Amino acid sequence: MNKGALALLVHGGTENWSPQRWKNRFDEVCGGRRVLQLPDAAFDPAEVHYAAVWKPHPGELAAFPNLRVIFNLGAGVDALMADKSLPDVPLVRVAVDDLTERMTEYIVLHVLMHHRQEPYLRESQRAKRWAPKSQWAAGAISVGVMGLGTLGAHAAKMLRHIGFRVAGWSRSPRQIDGIDCFAGAQQLQPFLRRTDILVCLLPLTPDTRHVLNRDLFAQLNRTSPMGAPVLINAGRGSLQNEADILQCLDDGTLGGASLDVYATEPLPSDSRFWTHPKVVLTPHNAADTDPDEISKYVAQQIERFEAGGALENVVDRKRGY
Amino acid sequence: MNKGALALLVHGGTENWSPQRWKNRFDEVCGGRRVLQLPDAAFDPAEVHYAAVWKPHPGELAAFPNLRVIFNLGAGVDALMADKSLPDVPLVRVAVDDLTERMTEYIVLHVLMHHRQEPYLRESQRAKRWAPKSQWAAGAISVGVMGLGTLGAHAAKMLRHIGFRVAGWSRSPRQIDGIDCFAGAQQLQPFLRRTDILVCLLPLTPDTRHVLNRDLFAQLNRTSPMGAPVLINAGRGSLQNEADILQCLDDGTLGGASLDVYATEPLPSDSRFWTHPKVVLTPHNAADTDPDEISKYVAQQIERFEAGGALENVVDRKRGY
Repeated sequence: MNKGALALLVHGGTENWSPQRWKNRFDEVCGGRRVLQLPDAAFDPAEVHYAAVWKPHPGELAAFPNLRVIFNLGAGVDALMADKSLPDVPLVRVAVDDLTERMTEYIVLHVLMHHRQEPYLRESQRAKRWAPKSQWAAGAISVGVMGLGTLGAHAAKMLRHIGFRVAGWSRSPRQIDGIDCFAGAQQLQPFLRRTDILVCLLPLTPDTRHVLNRDLFAQLNRTSPMGAPVLINAGRGSLQNEADILQCLDDGTLGGASLDVYATEPLPSDSRFWTHPKVVLTPHNAADTDPDEISKYVAQQIERFEAGGALENVVDRKRGY
Repeated sequence: MNKGALALLVHGGTENWSPQRWKNRFDEVCGGRRVLQLPDAAFDPAEVHYAAVWKPHPGELAAFPNLRVIFNLGAGVDALMADKSLPDVPLVRVAVDDLTERMTEYIVLHVLMHHRQEPYLRESQRAKRWAPKSQWAAGAISVGVMGLGTLGAHAAKMLRHIGFRVAGWSRSPRQIDGIDCFAGAQQLQPFLRRTDILVCLLPLTPDTRHVLNRDLFAQLNRTSPMGAPVLINAGRGSLQNEADILQCLDDGTLGGASLDVYATEPLPSDSRFWTHPKVVLTPHNAADTDPDEISKYVAQQIERFEAGGALENVVDRKRGY
């Protein structure tokens, strides 16, 4: 019997993400299933049962009449949810340890960079200035993590382990050992009030668009040992109001920011983020997904699904993540 | 009965370390014991039973005929050990969680900065260049920690928790869960061969002077996923041959270095470390000691000692740490 084919629709990404690299990895792990690298492959759309995708063009997935499951090759599904013609089949997002651990590396690194006054120390090095400043301990700093899914919860626990006071905020209530958990609109203000370093790992939905704005920044801890609170956004660019971030950095509402994501990517060369002395900027590389790990994850899920098992990490279409 | 006095001899340090700040803290915790802030206080040298010191001048401690214990206010005792007239009484070094945790913050921060290609990413930001590079996972990188005392062991365990492969090397054998432990001269080479990021937290003794030299760097992993191995020294400046470090950075034997300590401090303005693009430089601030924590630690040790209990963390004079 002929197995249904897996269609790969991968657009954009770095050299690590080349469609050919994905094709090679999937060929290795799919045990004889036909893997179609689109748009190049010649095939009958009806033979496609599965699609593994990264930023497919709107409408691309509607072309497969027998599609059974869509696998998103990254953590956020906001780009897919914006496709009004998205087939009504299960949509699975990746949740592999490798991706989670890479995001935690990024969050720990950037929290520590601000906590340990790295921007000041690099400026001192450039000025050949030996000028150590007093340094507060991690236990004096409260990190607040917005979004307590797989990524946020893992990062929060690691920060706690390093010695920070850690709070988390999510839409619906969560319980995590050692983390002060806040939930819902009612508890957003007390969460913000105590936060010195705000880490955003929220999913992008119509509710969270531009949630990182002046009104929110103004509620962060005004008596932080760090002077002014700091923003770290490794979620999605559309979570942030970029004009507000720049104004708040300029007027001292924010003391610094680490940004990995932007409203427009690549970040346009005229953005003030590039040159702002309080901005630590990375090119959307907080958590690369590793084709080796992800292709295995997808192949295993397909195998279990065809044996009658349940899919993992299926997106709730109503909720949007 | 009159309690023996505690003499404070604190030289150098930042504003956080002012002798007056130490005096205030010790006055609070010493329960009526006289605390002498030298050289200002008027007193009889015979009444001094304890000395709490940071970089005392050679010979200063020999002036107290009834001295019972010397407390060193930082982690390394190499400056004291160089004083040939040091009284033959127990020498105690601080080992408080606060200091240990601050050092681990520094080590984790600098390991992650090199692992996550921060020097490249900051250069990209300055050039307004959106150019993400492939990023290896922490599990692909082997960190090697030289020195497995309180500080080294704590940092090693945290790095393991984050996901790195971690090995440790010490003079005498140690066992630490999850860490591949190497010991002695015989096992130095296999330890170095597997190491991509070398972290040095060795005590400074006649044996370890200039241990960080070209011969050692050349034995680090030549097939590192990072390209070339990296050095992080947060021990003492005299552990490193500075000319060798610069040459090895220039010829590619080392791919980068984070340095917190130097042969001469403050680092002279003509040192090439200031401007070398592969050097991340900090002004000996990896682990500030907090007068609040340390003064309590010293007061508790004196109390226990006078009640007939044993002192903790007494330096082995023969070993030198």
